Amino acid sequence: MKDIRLNKRKIVNDPVYGFINIPSDLIFDLIEHPYFQRLRRIKQLGLTEFVYPGAVHTRFQHTLGAVHLVDSALSVLRAKGFEISKEEEEAVSIAILLHDIGHGPFSHTLEQAIVEKYSHEELSLLYMNELNTQYNGKLDLAISIFTNQYRKKFLHQLVSSQLDMDRLDYLRRDSFYTGVSEGVVSSDRIIKMLSIVNDELVVEAKGIYSIEKFLIARWLMYWQVYLHKTVVSAEQLLLNIFNRVKELISYGENIYLTDEIRFFFSNSNKNTDIKEMLEIFAKLDDNDIFVLIKAWAKEKDRVLSLLSGNLLSRHLYKIEIQNDPFNDKIIKKHSDIALKKLGFTEQELHYFVFTDHISKNAYSAFDDKILIAYKNGNLIDITEASDMLNMSILSKTVRKYFLCYPKEII
Amino acid sequence: MKDIRLNKRKIVNDPVYGFINIPSDLIFDLIEHPYFQRLRRIKQLGLTEFVYPGAVHTRFQHTLGAVHLVDSALSVLRAKGFEISKEEEEAVSIAILLHDIGHGPFSHTLEQAIVEKYSHEELSLLYMNELNTQYNGKLDLAISIFTNQYRKKFLHQLVSSQLDMDRLDYLRRDSFYTGVSEGVVSSDRIIKMLSIVNDELVVEAKGIYSIEKFLIARWLMYWQVYLHKTVVSAEQLLLNIFNRVKELISYGENIYLTDEIRFFFSNSNKNTDIKEMLEIFAKLDDNDIFVLIKAWAKEKDRVLSLLSGNLLSRHLYKIEIQNDPFNDKIIKKHSDIALKKLGFTEQELHYFVFTDHISKNAYSAFDDKILIAYKNGNLIDITEASDMLNMSILSKTVRKYFLCYPKEII
Amino acid sequence: MKDIRLNKRKIVNDPVYGFINIPSDLIFDLIEHPYFQRLRRIKQLGLTEFVYPGAVHTRFQHTLGAVHLVDSALSVLRAKGFEISKEEEEAVSIAILLHDIGHGPFSHTLEQAIVEKYSHEELSLLYMNELNTQYNGKLDLAISIFTNQYRKKFLHQLVSSQLDMDRLDYLRRDSFYTGVSEGVVSSDRIIKMLSIVNDELVVEAKGIYSIEKFLIARWLMYWQVYLHKTVVSAEQLLLNIFNRVKELISYGENIYLTDEIRFFFSNSNKNTDIKEMLEIFAKLDDNDIFVLIKAWAKEKDRVLSLLSGNLLSRHLYKIEIQNDPFNDKIIKKHSDIALKKLGFTEQELHYFVFTDHISKNAYSAFDDKILIAYKNGNLIDITEASDMLNMSILSKTVRKYFLCYPKEII
Amino acid sequence: MKDIRLNKRKIVNDPVYGFINIPSDLIFDLIEHPYFQRLRRIKQLGLTEFVYPGAVHTRFQHTLGAVHLVDSALSVLRAKGFEISKEEEEAVSIAILLHDIGHGPFSHTLEQAIVEKYSHEELSLLYMNELNTQYNGKLDLAISIFTNQYRKKFLHQLVSSQLDMDRLDYLRRDSFYTGVSEGVVSSDRIIKMLSIVNDELVVEAKGIYSIEKFLIARWLMYWQVYLHKTVVSAEQLLLNIFNRVKELISYGENIYLTDEIRFFFSNSNKNTDIKEMLEIFAKLDDNDIFVLIKAWAKEKDRVLSLLSGNLLSRHLYKIEIQNDPFNDKIIKKHSDIALKKLGFTEQELHYFVFTDHISKNAYSAFDDKILIAYKNGNLIDITEASDMLNMSILSKTVRKYFLCYPKEII
Repeated sequence: MKDIRLNKRKIVNDPVYGFINIPSDLIFDLIEHPYFQRLRRIKQLGLTEFVYPGAVHTRFQHTLGAVHLVDSALSVLRAKGFEISKEEEEAVSIAILLHDIGHGPFSHTLEQAIVEKYSHEELSLLYMNELNTQYNGKLDLAISIFTNQYRKKFLHQLVSSQLDMDRLDYLRRDSFYTGVSEGVVSSDRIIKMLSIVNDELVVEAKGIYSIEKFLIARWLMYWQVYLHKTVVSAEQLLLNIFNRVKELISYGENIYLTDEIRFFFSNSNKNTDIKEMLEIFAKLDDNDIFVLIKAWAKEKDRVLSLLSGNLLSRHLYKIEIQNDPFNDKIIKKHSDIALKKLGFTEQELHYFVFTDHISKNAYSAFDDKILIAYKNGNLIDITEASDMLNMSILSKTVRKYFLCYPKEII
Repeated sequence: MKDIRLNKRKIVNDPVYGFINIPSDLIFDLIEHPYFQRLRRIKQLGLTEFVYPGAVHTRFQHTLGAVHLVDSALSVLRAKGFEISKEEEEAVSIAILLHDIGHGPFSHTLEQAIVEKYSHEELSLLYMNELNTQYNGKLDLAISIFTNQYRKKFLHQLVSSQLDMDRLDYLRRDSFYTGVSEGVVSSDRIIKMLSIVNDELVVEAKGIYSIEKFLIARWLMYWQVYLHKTVVSAEQLLLNIFNRVKELISYGENIYLTDEIRFFFSNSNKNTDIKEMLEIFAKLDDNDIFVLIKAWAKEKDRVLSLLSGNLLSRHLYKIEIQNDPFNDKIIKKHSDIALKKLGFTEQELHYFVFTDHISKNAYSAFDDKILIAYKNGNLIDITEASDMLNMSILSKTVRKYFLCYPKEII
Repeated sequence: MKDIRLNKRKIVNDPVYGFINIPSDLIFDLIEHPYFQRLRRIKQLGLTEFVYPGAVHTRFQHTLGAVHLVDSALSVLRAKGFEISKEEEEAVSIAILLHDIGHGPFSHTLEQAIVEKYSHEELSLLYMNELNTQYNGKLDLAISIFTNQYRKKFLHQLVSSQLDMDRLDYLRRDSFYTGVSEGVVSSDRIIKMLSIVNDELVVEAKGIYSIEKFLIARWLMYWQVYLHKTVVSAEQLLLNIFNRVKELISYGENIYLTDEIRFFFSNSNKNTDIKEMLEIFAKLDDNDIFVLIKAWAKEKDRVLSLLSGNLLSRHLYKIEIQNDPFNDKIIKKHSDIALKKLGFTEQELHYFVFTDHISKNAYSAFDDKILIAYKNGNLIDITEASDMLNMSILSKTVRKYFLCYPKEII
Repeated sequence: MKDIRLNKRKIVNDPVYGFINIPSDLIFDLIEHPYFQRLRRIKQLGLTEFVYPGAVHTRFQHTLGAVHLVDSALSVLRAKGFEISKEEEEAVSIAILLHDIGHGPFSHTLEQAIVEKYSHEELSLLYMNELNTQYNGKLDLAISIFTNQYRKKFLHQLVSSQLDMDRLDYLRRDSFYTGVSEGVVSSDRIIKMLSIVNDELVVEAKGIYSIEKFLIARWLMYWQVYLHKTVVSAEQLLLNIFNRVKELISYGENIYLTDEIRFFFSNSNKNTDIKEMLEIFAKLDDNDIFVLIKAWAKEKDRVLSLLSGNLLSRHLYKIEIQNDPFNDKIIKKHSDIALKKLGFTEQELHYFVFTDHISKNAYSAFDDKILIAYKNGNLIDITEASDMLNMSILSKTVRKYFLCYPKEII
């Protein structure tokens, strides 16, 4: 019995942290589960590699990294005298391990396009419940933490809050793989400054600069990476491909689909057995999407084949971004040229010329604060504690408008 | 005209070197070509991510990295007074850009399994010739350098030799993405020490320690990464899957295949139009392999579905490695258990219990030397120049034998 | 002749950039000059090592690093089509090489305490003029650039402006050596974005996020490193030691002094031969200060020996920092305890209990702007161009008040 | 009481490891002790900064780094089930903290020149004994571990062995500060592979490649850094300066000396009170040496002033290195020129033209082995376990001969 335990103790090489320990047998088993292994085949940043070729890291790596950070945070908190039991340790590790298990391929883009009924968070919880059944209730505490029903709220906050280990890992990891040094977060320093007051996660006062840096890094990563205009253009292209396929199917056209995608396209609004749905969704990964697009590039529908071929050869929309909505005149101008020059119909036009907006704020005090703990016992929200940054600006939603149109019409 | 040029000047973010400049318009166009964009979808290290989850970088990134190193090397050589024309610069950059374009998905494993007739080097040359036709002979000099027919031999050596920029990039990049710091090569230092004597690439004497380190790093990377036993086990599994499919097809079984794979399985030994073959091969990437394996996991042939399912859930062979061949007795023992316990037939057994060997030497003085240039004019091979390493050992082929069998039979 | 040149071509190892090339013979000779070699013995951050033990790097390294960045910037600008002659290249490199040559030991603290008559910038110019004499006018252009009299203003801006290579190097280097990752500036990225409009240095629009990050990094480094309260406490201690020595000398006390320090203490306000003054100042470095303090720790004056001993054993003042001035009551309270408990006289008290302020703004648009260049030709100051940061806040001077008193009186 | 403890819990920023925890109050007090603070003013690599300007890190930093690695190693060993008590933890941390406390300024060069009677190891033990007296026997166990009298031999081996935490830190730190990436040792990986068999430190078999890399890295660092010929030349110059001073003193000449140096020059062979000697030695640091040399550069003895001035302006000997001893003819040739051209007497000549040798082996199996532990229980020395390296070569002493002479005589 002891031997098996020892065999399961694994160390994983990780380019970001050096080594990651798998903290328990149950966690090792969950990692080995096909539901989880699937994350090896789902890229963390989807099409971002079109702009940052290095950014091909997977949700699998990210999740292990987040487990590692939770592990570090627990060590720091224990060393400061806070009691955390073995059971709580394992439970919070499981909660963060599985927090992204509901993500499908190219999640940010296709989340609504494949499974219409559930968000990825809801899917994560469904998977956790299913795994809890498979493992005879051993995930009870993890689920309680994940859903924020456990009294030690700080455990939930390590998994999901303005300063959770999820964000700490993805900012640092995305920064590492894209090569955008702006996002490098000193996760070590932040974790060393964590403490607990009234069962809530707080940051010691001398960590205030690191928190400021963290919020700014997030903001910068949004504009340099997550909302990079070429990435947005690629994602819009992928989304339009899926929209066109669905439209054609609704007309009764016979479009090539894999069994799994057909299941979701035809069943998404009906009552299906959840377990069956989870099993089928777990078969999907990035590979399917690319193979489908390669097949669709050969379909006879001109819109679908053109869009699909464009994605494969990275022939993206031209995209313009500005602070205000685009006026109708400029949209009309591009539409007219597209109609004339490329020969699309009015009904097809919206696949090629369209406008929308993106938006983000780096910090939102409303849903969840980052509390700074002073030696005198005061707890102050970072927006007030910081004398450097006008946090009202970081917490203000910035909205940007984009206009996409074919490169050929310029 | 000038504007277009400026538009094409691109800088690519790279986590290893920070930034990579695309040195010319022609090179930019070649990168945009679908033949090359395909490399975005082919991982540099195939199944190595089963052991090193970070190692999901692509041949696309590696190739740009090698172009960057050639660029640096040319700057250093020019600063030392050696003349290299603009045409030579572009040609050697193209040669290294395209040196790996003949790689298919999971090349190290499937090179012989998909295209039986050509090695990946031969395919690279075929693609270069095809691109040369498409670009009206603009690749003449690049091909001349690639095939080592150009008089300035050092240009070929930058692309392919014991110390080429290909190796310098892949050692450093693979080390970066696996997190195995042993392979970190100070490419900067080596490049600064390069010089030319009689049109051949040499290393200045004070660079001798860096060369020693480079050869050792390569050796260490072989055993820690490229020939890691779990990686070998995974590759054998993938290879056996393809072998089983081919065997079943040869019996006339109806196995699911994509059009492209069917083309190669049925035509590989006949005369086909090369251009057609290149076009079809260029449609293949890692995504196809995984989608095929997911389909094969549902085939009714028990061997094929079992092997395929095992790969998907990372349920690999148990593997043992030793310096001497495994004796028949131990193989027989494992075979007997497998036959009894798992119920395979004698004919199927070799898919589950088998032995083979792997081997590598870090330096081979026979085909191509690394010459150290002393101030007094002497040129001495590194094996003699080094007083630290017994280079005869590094250049000796080390052979290791492995034995694979199912985990279930232990 | 050619051989000598080759010998002088030097590459210097640098932990921050890997390698630094010495770009010309004249620059090599200037580096070899005793005026410059002296910078090897002057730490960049003075007493900061009391808080950040790694921060013992020297002005010598920093200056070579700044030369390296100028070199990179010139390459980038040339590649963008701007003409910069060989003479201009050497001159701007010399200007940055010598921009800090007027720094003495523990400059930030002792600048006014040793040479009262000249600031370090003025001393740098005096040294340049002297070297120009020694090198027969070869520094004419460098001096013209340094003093901003040369028509290509961007050359001066590379040496001294809101975005000069001096700051770029010191932020990155100080961050590297302190281990404070907040200050890591992607100097590569910023340099790649530089351009020239109307002979002025500008930043291309897509570099805006890097500039934002740069200004924030500077700000964070000020509060985490340069104005760290323990560093301030140590610097105040050093300053008070020098003040006490001067006071004692003014009373005619016989205090141990080295010849060089005696020269400055007795001559600083009289007319002295500038060349002689430069020669003597060039004999001073950090070593002298520490040896003096070790001698002063043995002096019979109780204030001097106590302060000196405290510095040697890192027994610093207790320091409090707040946003508003300290009220008289609190100062009086600490003074009273000190008088009673430690037995100082009223006249000595101000060496042990005192208050003052520190202040900093990260960006000042008044003296020198950072201009962002848009594709449409617009030039906009970063404070307006940025929609992320309230630059009015970064450019607002933040003032903090501190109160120092002996640890013993708590 | 508890508050004071909390106050003493310190985290130190370190550029190599990020953060270093001070593990106990006693260790914090020892660090604050003037004996230890002195190490802030002693560079780890002495004159190496003449070649690698970044290498100005101190023995203070190195020692804290070694404490950090011991801390990590203990965590790993405990996690593997080995019991280590709180007392043992503190004791081994103290042993490594103080292992270098006997080092004086420019130790590698001046070890015999200042304190003739004791090596730095003996001095370290004397300081430990003195501190043990000051701290009422609290260092008993630490001293027992340091002197290898404690039964758990692995604790001593963490402090001093072929694979101790001292070497692990200095290789990595020296590599970091010099910028010589060849010496980067993956200390994390090695530490994770440590285990204990029969109270001895061993390395698990899968760590074998890391050990090979470690031994090679050490070897490479010797030749690239520690025995770099320009460093050797500088050290010989410093040594000759001290030798000349002693010679002049023996003639009764009145040479400038500080009190502390005079103490050692006059008392080194007599019986002195050890405590007094330790106090005086603790007053010495790098600053004294440089101030002395600046004073000696003004002495009237031509040999002394010339050598001292040369060191200050980094005007070093020309040095040649070869595998065999230099023959008498070449030495005679250089001597003759020096006599004629520079006008030295025969008696002074040996300060300017001389030959000697340096030597090193990277691994010596004789005094202390690195044992590799296999799963079957075998313990095999690395020289036999490694099939990659001819360890007999790494463990063979390589001797190199050098010849120094003034640059002026070429």
